[in-house]
Amino acid sequence: MYAYAVNATLGDDVYSEPSTTPVIYQPTYHALEAHIAQLTGKEAGLFMPSGTASNQIALRTHLKQPPYTVLCDHRGHIHRYEVGGTPFHSGAAMTTLIPSNGHHLTLSEVEDNVIYDTDVHLAPTEVISLENTLNGTIFPQDEIIAISEFARSHNIKMHLDGARLWHVAIETGLSLKELCDAFDTVSLCFSKGLGAPIGSCLVGPTEFIAKARRFRKLFGGGMRQTGILAASAAYALNYNFPLLVNVHALARKVQKGLEDVGVTILSPAETCMIFYDASSIGATYDEIFERGRKLPEPLILGGSRVVIHIQTSEAAVDDFLTLIRDIAGEKKRAGFVKPETNGQTHFKEVYVRRVSH
Amino acid sequence: MYAYAVNATLGDDVYSEPSTTPVIYQPTYHALEAHIAQLTGKEAGLFMPSGTASNQIALRTHLKQPPYTVLCDHRGHIHRYEVGGTPFHSGAAMTTLIPSNGHHLTLSEVEDNVIYDTDVHLAPTEVISLENTLNGTIFPQDEIIAISEFARSHNIKMHLDGARLWHVAIETGLSLKELCDAFDTVSLCFSKGLGAPIGSCLVGPTEFIAKARRFRKLFGGGMRQTGILAASAAYALNYNFPLLVNVHALARKVQKGLEDVGVTILSPAETCMIFYDASSIGATYDEIFERGRKLPEPLILGGSRVVIHIQTSEAAVDDFLTLIRDIAGEKKRAGFVKPETNGQTHFKEVYVRRVSH
Amino acid sequence: MYAYAVNATLGDDVYSEPSTTPVIYQPTYHALEAHIAQLTGKEAGLFMPSGTASNQIALRTHLKQPPYTVLCDHRGHIHRYEVGGTPFHSGAAMTTLIPSNGHHLTLSEVEDNVIYDTDVHLAPTEVISLENTLNGTIFPQDEIIAISEFARSHNIKMHLDGARLWHVAIETGLSLKELCDAFDTVSLCFSKGLGAPIGSCLVGPTEFIAKARRFRKLFGGGMRQTGILAASAAYALNYNFPLLVNVHALARKVQKGLEDVGVTILSPAETCMIFYDASSIGATYDEIFERGRKLPEPLILGGSRVVIHIQTSEAAVDDFLTLIRDIAGEKKRAGFVKPETNGQTHFKEVYVRRVSH
Amino acid sequence: MYAYAVNATLGDDVYSEPSTTPVIYQPTYHALEAHIAQLTGKEAGLFMPSGTASNQIALRTHLKQPPYTVLCDHRGHIHRYEVGGTPFHSGAAMTTLIPSNGHHLTLSEVEDNVIYDTDVHLAPTEVISLENTLNGTIFPQDEIIAISEFARSHNIKMHLDGARLWHVAIETGLSLKELCDAFDTVSLCFSKGLGAPIGSCLVGPTEFIAKARRFRKLFGGGMRQTGILAASAAYALNYNFPLLVNVHALARKVQKGLEDVGVTILSPAETCMIFYDASSIGATYDEIFERGRKLPEPLILGGSRVVIHIQTSEAAVDDFLTLIRDIAGEKKRAGFVKPETNGQTHFKEVYVRRVSH
Repeated sequence: MYAYAVNATLGDDVYSEPSTTPVIYQPTYHALEAHIAQLTGKEAGLFMPSGTASNQIALRTHLKQPPYTVLCDHRGHIHRYEVGGTPFHSGAAMTTLIPSNGHHLTLSEVEDNVIYDTDVHLAPTEVISLENTLNGTIFPQDEIIAISEFARSHNIKMHLDGARLWHVAIETGLSLKELCDAFDTVSLCFSKGLGAPIGSCLVGPTEFIAKARRFRKLFGGGMRQTGILAASAAYALNYNFPLLVNVHALARKVQKGLEDVGVTILSPAETCMIFYDASSIGATYDEIFERGRKLPEPLILGGSRVVIHIQTSEAAVDDFLTLIRDIAGEKKRAGFVKPETNGQTHFKEVYVRRVSH
Repeated sequence: MYAYAVNATLGDDVYSEPSTTPVIYQPTYHALEAHIAQLTGKEAGLFMPSGTASNQIALRTHLKQPPYTVLCDHRGHIHRYEVGGTPFHSGAAMTTLIPSNGHHLTLSEVEDNVIYDTDVHLAPTEVISLENTLNGTIFPQDEIIAISEFARSHNIKMHLDGARLWHVAIETGLSLKELCDAFDTVSLCFSKGLGAPIGSCLVGPTEFIAKARRFRKLFGGGMRQTGILAASAAYALNYNFPLLVNVHALARKVQKGLEDVGVTILSPAETCMIFYDASSIGATYDEIFERGRKLPEPLILGGSRVVIHIQTSEAAVDDFLTLIRDIAGEKKRAGFVKPETNGQTHFKEVYVRRVSH
Repeated sequence: MYAYAVNATLGDDVYSEPSTTPVIYQPTYHALEAHIAQLTGKEAGLFMPSGTASNQIALRTHLKQPPYTVLCDHRGHIHRYEVGGTPFHSGAAMTTLIPSNGHHLTLSEVEDNVIYDTDVHLAPTEVISLENTLNGTIFPQDEIIAISEFARSHNIKMHLDGARLWHVAIETGLSLKELCDAFDTVSLCFSKGLGAPIGSCLVGPTEFIAKARRFRKLFGGGMRQTGILAASAAYALNYNFPLLVNVHALARKVQKGLEDVGVTILSPAETCMIFYDASSIGATYDEIFERGRKLPEPLILGGSRVVIHIQTSEAAVDDFLTLIRDIAGEKKRAGFVKPETNGQTHFKEVYVRRVSH
Repeated sequence: MYAYAVNATLGDDVYSEPSTTPVIYQPTYHALEAHIAQLTGKEAGLFMPSGTASNQIALRTHLKQPPYTVLCDHRGHIHRYEVGGTPFHSGAAMTTLIPSNGHHLTLSEVEDNVIYDTDVHLAPTEVISLENTLNGTIFPQDEIIAISEFARSHNIKMHLDGARLWHVAIETGLSLKELCDAFDTVSLCFSKGLGAPIGSCLVGPTEFIAKARRFRKLFGGGMRQTGILAASAAYALNYNFPLLVNVHALARKVQKGLEDVGVTILSPAETCMIFYDASSIGATYDEIFERGRKLPEPLILGGSRVVIHIQTSEAAVDDFLTLIRDIAGEKKRAGFVKPETNGQTHFKEVYVRRVSH
């Protein structure tokens, strides 16, 4: 990756320099933006400093004049983990739905909750923002298409937080273009699953991206010589993307290992994440965290979420499963009996950031 | 009421004139603000052009520096019918909860959903905003007190949208002060139930009200000679407030009359509103609206909500019940049979604004 | 005026009721809005709770999607006395120009300072907002027309803060329509010069006013039964408007009286205001204020600004001039000698609110 | 610089990881932040994606609850070239002053224009934001200190846009700490003068920086593994900073060369910039740009501004001066005679981005 970075050209991204400079200045970020646009079947792309910037600038660009509402899953990253960005930057109200199937929103739920422009008291729905994967689970493509058709028939824009869309492509065999066709705009991340140090890419129509570029400057996300970052992202795309096959296999191994010792799985290993219930073996997440830290090759754990990434070794997974098996055994010997559940396990998310040595 | 209005004094409310002018200029609005503050047990009051202004300026005044979140019932007026005002004016995120008892939020639901200031990704909860009555139903006072104690122990402010709090006082026998003690700030409306032409009053601590006065000016709600409006409100408070006893009795009469002809009640007549299900007699709201318009003394109806107010005559109620009875009879004769329900009737709100001639 | 108010009809202004209710509900405010629209040659009007609401909602409605800039005189009410409303409500940058002629902006100054949409670093000028009168002085109509032609050729909207435009019509003999033709939207006030207790009217294109109506609701300025206020405004328009002839004559009398005793005039009596320099007779504004308060018929004075309005009596003006003459005499006897000036008197504005008993 | 970047550690900057991870994870950006804080005499520092992010997040963090005003020079980067960021992000009004000395604001101008919290119509001044250098000129330190003392006595915060403060330190011999003492917060850039690819640093009190960190996340400027950027910045600080001595010498050479052929200097070479008037030799900037492009070693010129940076070679400067001398000669031979001026040359800024091959 460093070899890529060192060879990046260094045009100024704020001035979007290639348009006025000789060909020798063609910077890597423009090549990357064009490449991601092509992969996702969109007209244009824009390099962003973070996934939060990419989502929030996308929404800010879609939303023209208040009042307006954005509809999303109540667990959506844009609602939960972007510091209240949508109301802050765009002044937008939000309709945050709880999916009745516990997994993903449905067309019927969207239809029931869209706000139409019928009354001076209301802030009409102007954007539906979905997320794929959301907490590691894949949004069924036919449901996405149905929601998109409904949205388009009501002049509502569709945005996708596709920070981890790479995983969906790997797992479903659908191309990025097929996964993005139902959306006006998509945000994809180079950090997270792909393992680049920094950066995201927003894709959409040319005119939209031109406007988003101005908002990027306004948000302070217009960086100067970004070639070094774009080159790292390009490396990640070429070399790390295919490695997700292994990541998903390792995640399934974690799930199977946990199930084998009687751990209740809260959310299965569809891609790179598993959520498990420590209480189902009589343990606490804090206890597991402490034990993980003290291993000869320390594991940095935390909460119910296990995330596998391209640098996670099989040895780390084995260590983790051994640890859980040891703890489960200790608890059982100390008299712990797993309670009956109705399968409706409710969990509060506590985050683990990495399983690795 | 006009006699009151004509005798109002006419100081300038924006300049808050009494502080610098002779006693003869003491305007009626200041007397009204002081009176409402005393009734509700708060230090100070501020006359507002509307309930929306009162709620939104209250929230804007509570919220100091982003990021922050306001927690409320998903049916709350501040979330549903104030044009997305909280994100627009304050840039606030909102946690909008669905009460599991179908009636009101509980302490447990609030505790589970408050966002603490633990992580740079989060917008912490700074205000809990309740509404009493909400769609005509009364929020149990002990639950309010429990939520308030929790909120205060976490330095979260409590606001009450008490546009129709007058009804709660009449129905429960609790004083306005008792109903307001659990809240830092309360908004009460003179229009709606009390029947004054215009205006609301926000009450709270002196320093808070001084800051809210500046926001009122900023929002364009600082009006000049408001004495004429304040006097009308004072009249309404003195003469119309006690009439709510009759209003509630009439509402119960509507409910009983509807039940007598087999209409399913969606939300009972706790105060001045009843929500009923037209489909339970095989009718549509549009049909009922059309029939109401054509009566010799026309009724202006609409949707599932029936609101009784101080100008609603018993004759209008009788006309309405006769109309419903007639329609139910016609439908039955035409072969309609009321379906069995599991009691979990879901209704989409459709608004009726007035039952009157 | 009260007789008018008592006879107002009482439709609900938020719901804009006439469109769905029988003719007998036709409320007075709609008649007033239509009348002002006709007088000013615009398609539609909207009753507002204050001049600040009218200006700020007009700007908020013009401004679609950030970034954008509003250009105005640095002394403009929208910039100086509306609590920072334009950046607060609209997130708009402002270009605030100092007119080199000390009186009004010129086309040349506007041309030099408009920001074009040429660079991602810039917030383009989308609205030019003028004020007439500004501090009581009249904006030359030919300069307005020149600026307007320039603005229209660059797709920049023109707004007029015409809170005191009535005075210009009276003084120039131009019709309100002629004064408004150069603007897309105009705000006019019923309080201030016209003497109604509350309210302003925003006029503009039908579609614009429909959008502004939603913003009015969002700002909390959508009031319920405003007929009582609209009727007072209608009275003011019919009976008080023509009285401005006398007001201007009285203002000129004040100016002449001040000049006669050697007071330097900072801004002459073009309409209803005069700004004078107390130091030119060796006095302070505080001293004059104290002396005014203690007269047998007290005058409430303050600062450099004298405003005459329709309730100002000739006797009050005479008392004021006598007071100033007395003070000037005392100062002279105590040895005060008026300093030479270069005519470039710089004054800090200190406000007086009323000259009346 | 690449050698530095490749050896950077890679902690996650959003999670501010060092607090929970072993010492081996100590990332370079934290070392850099601490180093800049120490250099400038502040408690803490925060790495930022751009100078715009750094300034706008600083202002957003200073400003607590509207209404408020920020005071700055009308030429200030925060007002002119940050896309209207202060009103957009903070809803702040701005007082934008024209320095009467044509060079920098004075205490007297600041005193005359600060808005105090005396009236409900006003948005009080809460921050004074200065810029050093501004268009390449140095703000006299004693004037800064006088303004700062005034500001502190009125509880007004002082922010410095010190994107190019490095130049002031080099030129005046004052330490960065001495230059920063008068300010609560300072923003410094690693790109621009220092020549790093990306990044700025905001310094200030610990609690302030903690709050700014949250705003950075909210603005989408919280990047993940920023070590690679921080390492480049550290290189620039160590190796490029001292090179500014040469940069300034080259700039003075440009000025002298221009003066030698009779070019009027609009703004002299105090640090790395010179503004010159092409019309003083009868040429246009476009003409000079075209001629520069066509040189054997092309020069990319534009507008009145010439900026020298650490990669500008003496050869490039010589080529530029030769070019100007040639053009001046041609114009003279074609009959051009330099007009007399009163020294009050007014110039419209047209930007040149770089002089280099």
